[in-house]
Amino acid sequence: MQLLKDKIRNEGKVKDGNVLKVDSFLNHQMDIKFFNEIGKEFKRRFEGEEITKILTIESSGIGIACIVAQYFDVPVVFAKKSKTSNIAGDVYTHKVQSFTHNRIFDIIVAKDFLNPEDKILVIDDFLAKGSALQGLIGLIQDAGATLVGAGIVIEKGFQGGGELIRNMGVRVESLAIVDGMTEKEGCIFRN
Amino acid sequence: MQLLKDKIRNEGKVKDGNVLKVDSFLNHQMDIKFFNEIGKEFKRRFEGEEITKILTIESSGIGIACIVAQYFDVPVVFAKKSKTSNIAGDVYTHKVQSFTHNRIFDIIVAKDFLNPEDKILVIDDFLAKGSALQGLIGLIQDAGATLVGAGIVIEKGFQGGGELIRNMGVRVESLAIVDGMTEKEGCIFRN
Repeated sequence: MQLLKDKIRNEGKVKDGNVLKVDSFLNHQMDIKFFNEIGKEFKRRFEGEEITKILTIESSGIGIACIVAQYFDVPVVFAKKSKTSNIAGDVYTHKVQSFTHNRIFDIIVAKDFLNPEDKILVIDDFLAKGSALQGLIGLIQDAGATLVGAGIVIEKGFQGGGELIRNMGVRVESLAIVDGMTEKEGCIFRN
Repeated sequence: MQLLKDKIRNEGKVKDGNVLKVDSFLNHQMDIKFFNEIGKEFKRRFEGEEITKILTIESSGIGIACIVAQYFDVPVVFAKKSKTSNIAGDVYTHKVQSFTHNRIFDIIVAKDFLNPEDKILVIDDFLAKGSALQGLIGLIQDAGATLVGAGIVIEKGFQGGGELIRNMGVRVESLAIVDGMTEKEGCIFRN
């Protein structure tokens, strides 16, 4: 998606430790007009697929997922990152490793909101090593729901998560795949 | 907002400890069509006000804020709940007490995304004792930005936060104000 690559080139910042900061438009400040372009693009890519629900994970996936959901006319469910007193006991849960925050946490979805008849599109802002996406796929499998595919805004192609998930037979559509990056040169995109 | 009160009556569940569970449509599963009705209502209430940005707080405010932002044609910034390695050093920060989770945490916004010329509408799902909203107002004041008002989906009127914030001279528009609730009888709404 050329518009996304342009925004990453113009506004993104590469930091130590393979961190790509896109917080001026994607995951801290959120450019809602641009999110609508993302929504249109995912709709184009998943055209003809039956989708009943979008699943994402807090926090930075939520805004994108909500705007994207308008193009599919479906509700969004977000997986929570730890058990809170507001979540009932009946939940699906998986362990996820965050390399950004260097810790392991539980992701949780109430059983009420994932059903065997659901056809799920997963939406998230980043795909790096694939741990969060694996966890979300695990929740969908536990519920007996159907995974239609995953729509990712930025895939860090050099971190292996995309290959891992695609090798599981999952359709992964990434709007930009970054094959490498340096502070000096910025991002190298896969064509 | 009658549609919201109906949804709370039909889908909400009152739990021990003054917890109102509305996770089937508001803050776990998210009814995006309904969020658009919320957006229209906040637009109606803040009609004629100049607003350049919406500020919310992770996680459950984000989805609502993104949909509402479409009616004001502005970007959204969400305050993060703790310092992560993806946030640069230059941040505004305030302490917030969560009574739901019984802890104190820091909320953080990068200085880049709140400016003195900004006219801010705060959006959040709940207003109870007002600690989160006070923190968000503090961030806006630190930035020298203008606070236009706060748009709240559900205010727990009996927990005092709304009174506290209104007494500070802040315009608070709540789409439903709950004056009391019991497991048996459900919510009592202020007219």
